[in-house]
Amino acid sequence: MSNLNPNIKLNKKKEHKIEDLYKKILKGDRYALGKAITLIESNKPQHRKESKELISMCMKHKKDSLRIGITGSPGVGKSTLLEKLGLFVIEKGFKPAILAIDPSSKISGGSILGDKTRMNKLSKSSKAFIRPSPAGKSLGGVANKTMESVILVETAGFNPVFIETVGVGQSEIAVNSMTDIFILLLQPGAGDEIQGIKRGIMEMADIIVVNKADGDNLVNAEKTLARYSNALNLFKEKENGWNTEILMISALENKGIEKLWSVISKFEETVKKSGYFDLNRKKQNLEWFQDYIYKNLLEKIINNPELKKKYPEMLKKVEDGSMSFYEAGDYLIDLLLKN
Amino acid sequence: MSNLNPNIKLNKKKEHKIEDLYKKILKGDRYALGKAITLIESNKPQHRKESKELISMCMKHKKDSLRIGITGSPGVGKSTLLEKLGLFVIEKGFKPAILAIDPSSKISGGSILGDKTRMNKLSKSSKAFIRPSPAGKSLGGVANKTMESVILVETAGFNPVFIETVGVGQSEIAVNSMTDIFILLLQPGAGDEIQGIKRGIMEMADIIVVNKADGDNLVNAEKTLARYSNALNLFKEKENGWNTEILMISALENKGIEKLWSVISKFEETVKKSGYFDLNRKKQNLEWFQDYIYKNLLEKIINNPELKKKYPEMLKKVEDGSMSFYEAGDYLIDLLLKN
Repeated sequence: MSNLNPNIKLNKKKEHKIEDLYKKILKGDRYALGKAITLIESNKPQHRKESKELISMCMKHKKDSLRIGITGSPGVGKSTLLEKLGLFVIEKGFKPAILAIDPSSKISGGSILGDKTRMNKLSKSSKAFIRPSPAGKSLGGVANKTMESVILVETAGFNPVFIETVGVGQSEIAVNSMTDIFILLLQPGAGDEIQGIKRGIMEMADIIVVNKADGDNLVNAEKTLARYSNALNLFKEKENGWNTEILMISALENKGIEKLWSVISKFEETVKKSGYFDLNRKKQNLEWFQDYIYKNLLEKIINNPELKKKYPEMLKKVEDGSMSFYEAGDYLIDLLLKN
Repeated sequence: MSNLNPNIKLNKKKEHKIEDLYKKILKGDRYALGKAITLIESNKPQHRKESKELISMCMKHKKDSLRIGITGSPGVGKSTLLEKLGLFVIEKGFKPAILAIDPSSKISGGSILGDKTRMNKLSKSSKAFIRPSPAGKSLGGVANKTMESVILVETAGFNPVFIETVGVGQSEIAVNSMTDIFILLLQPGAGDEIQGIKRGIMEMADIIVVNKADGDNLVNAEKTLARYSNALNLFKEKENGWNTEILMISALENKGIEKLWSVISKFEETVKKSGYFDLNRKKQNLEWFQDYIYKNLLEKIINNPELKKKYPEMLKKVEDGSMSFYEAGDYLIDLLLKN
């Protein structure tokens, strides 16, 4: 009976490999966690398949965590704040993880090194886990992989999970779709148009933090605080029933970090009590579910051999006007559903 | 042989009906055009089917038109400008159509009457066609129907086609996906944050028009012109190779309308010469094509009887965590492709 199907053996081995990895992550094995994140960052079909298996196992593992989004323009002090806040929560007995969504990382590729250097002390702590943005061709892809990273670090027992992003585009919306609380970091003195903060971002914020309230900047920080407090009064109460709070800190001088953490905790308590916390997680889960079905169907279209052959032909007909996109689209959809 | 299948007869009659409608529209029959737009506004399955047939016929009809997007905050004078610009191009021998995308129309429902009242003279002209936003549950739906309206009015011989929108959200992006040129209308004195104009909108604009350059507003209009001219210098050249132009007008006093039309014509000439005009139309067509396939597949999912039964079940499993959204999603996709 040496003639066993080798594929079955291989599959069994692979399943075993992923389950092993899962069990190690569950025990908080940092090496396994790093390996798993490298796996999900790969776009090879086999790796994607394994990643989905792994993430599916992790998702069923119930975890109690707080996902905190932090956004702000470059230079506003996000890394300094995360270093101080991370060290503070470690003192409190937490194990923080810090992930990043950086839509520009595919270009610069260098933000990683910068982050680790700026979070010098935190990156050396065995209680913290820091991981930069995965590189990706599209923000959607980066966001997906970040969401998977969140699930992995939570499975490994990290909590809270900070997700950092540069407040320059659509990435805040992606972060908002995966976090429980959203913090906007500002610097003193600058108008919001100068900081490149879009109005929608401000409306998304649960907490607005004016950083660099130190030295010569203190007066300007107070002015900024007052200005944003006024602006906040124009907004309606958020759907989560929370009134956006605004406060000043100095990450550099380690001032206001405790106060910030207490506001975060108050937020968590409020939304958990009102039921909004669970409701929001369910809503996010549903969005990811629908998004996954969407993207997967598109992938099926692109990879269906019959369609692969027909798509360029239909496209040409749409382009030269001999077919409307309705007709060409219906033709392709019918083809997909028949094959 | 009186036992003919009545369905065949009915279908033949219907086909005939749509072809008749198409032929009448092609001749410029305004009554048929109105009827056709009412047909595309309906969401009944049979009406959607007929609409697609009609639009497919119209799309194959080659037409030479210019699609002009106009955006601006409420009160900036869009209707007054469109009235004056519409009357001006009629003098030049054109037959303008004016359509609107108003994401708020489903709530207010009253913008139509307002528009027709404000475009008093133009709405009475036999050379012009004015149609408000179709009501819709989503901006995507409204945009789709507006795109179909564009095709219908072009088939009826209207040119240029103005598409008006309120500059408050995603609707400019929808308008940008269906126009050849994009005009941003501003009023004097107000900062862009006050006017609610997002930076991305300004970057999309091919022409920026400061309206109300009359009476006491003249000095402020000049200041606004200077300020936006400076801001424009910060932007890179647009991908269409056109440098955004900025000018002052007074729609109320009918000043600067001729100049505005000459800038629009210069833009048209430039992008047609460079080949960008055709390239952009092709790109838009491709986007609509892909969007149609996307939406239609989603519709198939929602309406597939097997899936209809299974979707809530899967959703529940995703919600209670007994299945990951990957597993549930794959299950539904497999089901769809098998059925």
